[in-house]
Amino acid sequence: MTEQISELTTARLSIYLRCLEALEIAGVKTVSSLALAEQFHLNAAQIRKDLAYFGEFGIRGVGYYVKDLKRHLREILGVDRTIKAVILGAGNLGLALADYAGFRDDGFDIVALFDIVREKIGGYSKSGVPIRSLRDLGRVAEREHVEIAVNAVPAAAAQVVVDLATAAGIKAILNFSPSPIRVPRGVKLKNVDLTVSLESLSFYLAHGRMEGED
Amino acid sequence: MTEQISELTTARLSIYLRCLEALEIAGVKTVSSLALAEQFHLNAAQIRKDLAYFGEFGIRGVGYYVKDLKRHLREILGVDRTIKAVILGAGNLGLALADYAGFRDDGFDIVALFDIVREKIGGYSKSGVPIRSLRDLGRVAEREHVEIAVNAVPAAAAQVVVDLATAAGIKAILNFSPSPIRVPRGVKLKNVDLTVSLESLSFYLAHGRMEGED
Repeated sequence: MTEQISELTTARLSIYLRCLEALEIAGVKTVSSLALAEQFHLNAAQIRKDLAYFGEFGIRGVGYYVKDLKRHLREILGVDRTIKAVILGAGNLGLALADYAGFRDDGFDIVALFDIVREKIGGYSKSGVPIRSLRDLGRVAEREHVEIAVNAVPAAAAQVVVDLATAAGIKAILNFSPSPIRVPRGVKLKNVDLTVSLESLSFYLAHGRMEGED
Repeated sequence: MTEQISELTTARLSIYLRCLEALEIAGVKTVSSLALAEQFHLNAAQIRKDLAYFGEFGIRGVGYYVKDLKRHLREILGVDRTIKAVILGAGNLGLALADYAGFRDDGFDIVALFDIVREKIGGYSKSGVPIRSLRDLGRVAEREHVEIAVNAVPAAAAQVVVDLATAAGIKAILNFSPSPIRVPRGVKLKNVDLTVSLESLSFYLAHGRMEGED
């Protein structure tokens, strides 16, 4: 089943999950695909198609039960358990990511930041994530069963540091470095390109209104 | 034409542009949709469909001219000119974004960071972006014709600061704050949720291999 699922689909499921979390906080118990679409500027047919694919059908006249659908989406996305992650690089970006509330709220546990700058090692991010020496990465990754490494070191050092992470058995890399990174077979690499978001705004500025407001 | 274009399409066009930039640096002159798809783990049929929509057709036996297609995509995405942007908040995230090479390389000019902390005002990010008082936002935005504000202030202050930006005539907001933000009609809001990227990795960790490697 999962072999057919593209990253665009998982990205949509993530967005549905965010919306359901917002609805749950607002005390909403059930929601139709149409209401979900209208409220969050999504596509109702796409929602129904995506959810039907995972065997989740709305109930006629009711829609979806917010709590059940949320739990189901968390299972599908693999965030129904705590996933341990480390951040490579305790510069501005690494520190910002360590304190990014969304990660913690969503079941990700940021175990540590790693850096090579002596003055930083032994310190903490604002939210209390410890900064450790890069030399300890292997030991920490193994002992804590770290599954994800977030790469936030400058481009010049990125490959070396990611190699250390994959050598330590880390199986998934979220890469914020703009330079291309290679990973061994069996390791999943996800590149985050922040420029893409800015370009969707420049497109709007150049052409005016577009479909979808988020 | 542009009314039918979703943000998913512009995101794909951005990714094609990144790939073409990489090919140009590597000295590649022409590329087929198939080669583009294989090299960058994209979908060849989707590439042809997206580009045909914008009137860009490959040439049989040649494919696309890298330089021409790149220029055309930059026009479509509205980055064939310099777009001025400001960053709200000179914390770790704001400073990281100010120094993010991708923004500058892609024709975005980060005019200034804005903050309310006195010790920060008058300083600079590592790459030399000045940190100014939030009180100067309106004046700077008007004088410099700033079009985009990137919101990197904590959730509690986000709405107030974004209101200042839209009052200053800024027409597009890139929001990194996890809390929901409202903008007046006619202003484009793009929310960046970094958790979505992490969830695509947790999906992989839970289910194994998936289609598309990037």
